[in-house]
Amino acid sequence: MGQERTLRSERVYQGRLVGLRVDTVELSSGRQAEREIVEHDACAAIVAVDSEDNVLLVRQYRKPVEKMLLEIPAGGIESGEDPLDGARRELEEETGFSAERWEKLGFFYTSPGFCTEVMHVYRATELRQAKRNADDDESIELVRVPLSKATELIASGEVCDAKSIAGLLMALCALSR
Amino acid sequence: MGQERTLRSERVYQGRLVGLRVDTVELSSGRQAEREIVEHDACAAIVAVDSEDNVLLVRQYRKPVEKMLLEIPAGGIESGEDPLDGARRELEEETGFSAERWEKLGFFYTSPGFCTEVMHVYRATELRQAKRNADDDESIELVRVPLSKATELIASGEVCDAKSIAGLLMALCALSR
Repeated sequence: MGQERTLRSERVYQGRLVGLRVDTVELSSGRQAEREIVEHDACAAIVAVDSEDNVLLVRQYRKPVEKMLLEIPAGGIESGEDPLDGARRELEEETGFSAERWEKLGFFYTSPGFCTEVMHVYRATELRQAKRNADDDESIELVRVPLSKATELIASGEVCDAKSIAGLLMALCALSR
Repeated sequence: MGQERTLRSERVYQGRLVGLRVDTVELSSGRQAEREIVEHDACAAIVAVDSEDNVLLVRQYRKPVEKMLLEIPAGGIESGEDPLDGARRELEEETGFSAERWEKLGFFYTSPGFCTEVMHVYRATELRQAKRNADDDESIELVRVPLSKATELIASGEVCDAKSIAGLLMALCALSR
């Protein structure tokens, strides 16, 4: 068991947000297999908690699942950018807040079976209202909820994306350590 | 703010595991935008806990991130299949165990910004050794760890994919309710 050596790699698509390639790999058994690989830049997600222990969530329409979702703020890290700088920028763009204090909660791969995307997760506190500066083609509503209610929002399915569930529960588990 | 109406949809790729299309949408502002959408079938993931409170994890090479990862068992639900039946099949294929007792922990979207994939998450208990029947091009090692150590594996980064972090912490939070 172990590494899969790439024998051939065929580029299928290169878009603005995602790329797609098909790798032919040699398995440790000597057999060959094809791996469809979605390429996506690294991202940063933020569990931002204000002085009253409210967490800042964002509600936006997600076309791939055709639903409004309630998520923690997140977005792509630009090429060569420090993940923390990406997190600072995304928090401000999506919520209008900056934060004085940042702690890394960890990182995770969002879908390692088919996608390269890695998500760096931060807790941000000591928030300050900054200039709101949303992306042109994003329409985002800011929602504040008590951090203690986050488990209820997860249990009820109102928060239902992997990065938000993982990020919020990582923050809550760290808080109770 | 709200739904994004599809004006055009262009298929870029249809593979074995993923599809890719580019939708041109009309935003609520009247402006148009493009959405790159990766299509992936629904999946099931399982937090399987044995009679000694060990959770069953699987270690396998993940080509998209070029690493061995330690994850909860998971896999695709076949077209028309009940998610629970998919979960039963994947648990047996990846670990060699079946389970007598199943509870749904919830569901989540893995990457709703660009991907359609939804993951149904179950807790499985009352495990029984069944026939091992791994997929031909998967090479999977079974690892048992005490469920109480799961937070340590997450904190240390040894468990580092979103579905495993979300699934394990959902199970642990439910256990402590």
